[in-house]
Amino acid sequence: MRNIIIASTSTLHGSDYLDYILDELTHFFKNAQTVLFIPYARPGGISHDDYTKKVEIAFSKINKKAVGIHTFENPIEAIKNAEAIFTGGGNTFVLVNQLYKNNLVDVLKETITNGTPYLGTSAGSNICGLTIKTSNDMPIVYPPSFNTLGLVPFNINPHYLDPDTNSKHMGETRETRIKEFHSYNTPPVIGLREGSWLHVIDDSIVLNGNLTARIFEYNKVPYEVESGTQLNHLK
Amino acid sequence: MRNIIIASTSTLHGSDYLDYILDELTHFFKNAQTVLFIPYARPGGISHDDYTKKVEIAFSKINKKAVGIHTFENPIEAIKNAEAIFTGGGNTFVLVNQLYKNNLVDVLKETITNGTPYLGTSAGSNICGLTIKTSNDMPIVYPPSFNTLGLVPFNINPHYLDPDTNSKHMGETRETRIKEFHSYNTPPVIGLREGSWLHVIDDSIVLNGNLTARIFEYNKVPYEVESGTQLNHLK
Repeated sequence: MRNIIIASTSTLHGSDYLDYILDELTHFFKNAQTVLFIPYARPGGISHDDYTKKVEIAFSKINKKAVGIHTFENPIEAIKNAEAIFTGGGNTFVLVNQLYKNNLVDVLKETITNGTPYLGTSAGSNICGLTIKTSNDMPIVYPPSFNTLGLVPFNINPHYLDPDTNSKHMGETRETRIKEFHSYNTPPVIGLREGSWLHVIDDSIVLNGNLTARIFEYNKVPYEVESGTQLNHLK
Repeated sequence: MRNIIIASTSTLHGSDYLDYILDELTHFFKNAQTVLFIPYARPGGISHDDYTKKVEIAFSKINKKAVGIHTFENPIEAIKNAEAIFTGGGNTFVLVNQLYKNNLVDVLKETITNGTPYLGTSAGSNICGLTIKTSNDMPIVYPPSFNTLGLVPFNINPHYLDPDTNSKHMGETRETRIKEFHSYNTPPVIGLREGSWLHVIDDSIVLNGNLTARIFEYNKVPYEVESGTQLNHLK
């Protein structure tokens, strides 16, 4: 009885943290009073405490409490006992490094697979895929592995960006980068645009939000799927 | 007698491969007839052969030959015997992975330190720094280490991009990413804009090109330096 939201982003331009998805979260977290928050990705290097405060403010709007995993003496037990779990965005390498350091990768996978609702945004969504090899983040720390939870049989590319045809910058476009990924790896990649999320319930994986998503399969031309599309055939 | 060019990019918008820096390279490679080319970064996943052909065409304009390191049975000897070396851009993780796989990191460092002229562009420049922790690339393969040649006592951020104040995209700006790097690492980072390069001669490290570069030092406000600035004090 898996119940997972894999969101591209936490924040839409011009609105508050998590605002765009709070209605959905009211329903998603309906059986939880307190959500265990994993602040390890530390966006902009902010402290675990400060990051958790930000989440507390957002969650208070839907009458939920947030408690940071860093406040528990035993984070493994904290995950096992959680009513629901949220991993926020920031730096994916930092997040994964800390998860491995605290030996949390296996217990997190097992707990979510057993049905504890899990919300991920950005870096917290990257780790739902097979690896972080399609992260957009700067590799500021060296984690012991790029392998992650594999809750879905593909990789996520959050904050998916279409090529800027006016740009004179010669850095690679996102599509070029994902094509390069497929020179060395075969799993599909889902490019999730801002405001899009995947809702995984048991074996169902459905795209939500207002925008289409871009699907990159090995040796295929990339294509768009509409919101509402069932994606459980991808692997 | 080090002689190293660390360039942000190979190609300026609207001009051919290496065109913007060919005059400089005529002088830089004046004692070499053949340049050993390291094509491991494979931009867009192109083959080592195809990438080397692209370099051959550019180098023919200044009457130099290019020969790909992949054509040698013993790449270690190829580096030791090279008249000059050029590592092109592409994916930094792929490049570093292949350098480690072929056991080339130490010999490359030693050969360049002993005076063999070295040109790097983009990924080929990233490896001149201490680590690839300020690469912009997607981590499509997992290399055995992020540590690189350390030919300069800081890190490079090639293709440095100023924040787009009109953007509604919520991904991190380059400056934010480098600040995050400094939450976990203390070495300086040089943001090299397109068309800029560092010329390292012995202990001198001078910024070249038309644009300023942005310097990020640990616990300091980032600042700009003009072309012509000596940067050998940074560490």
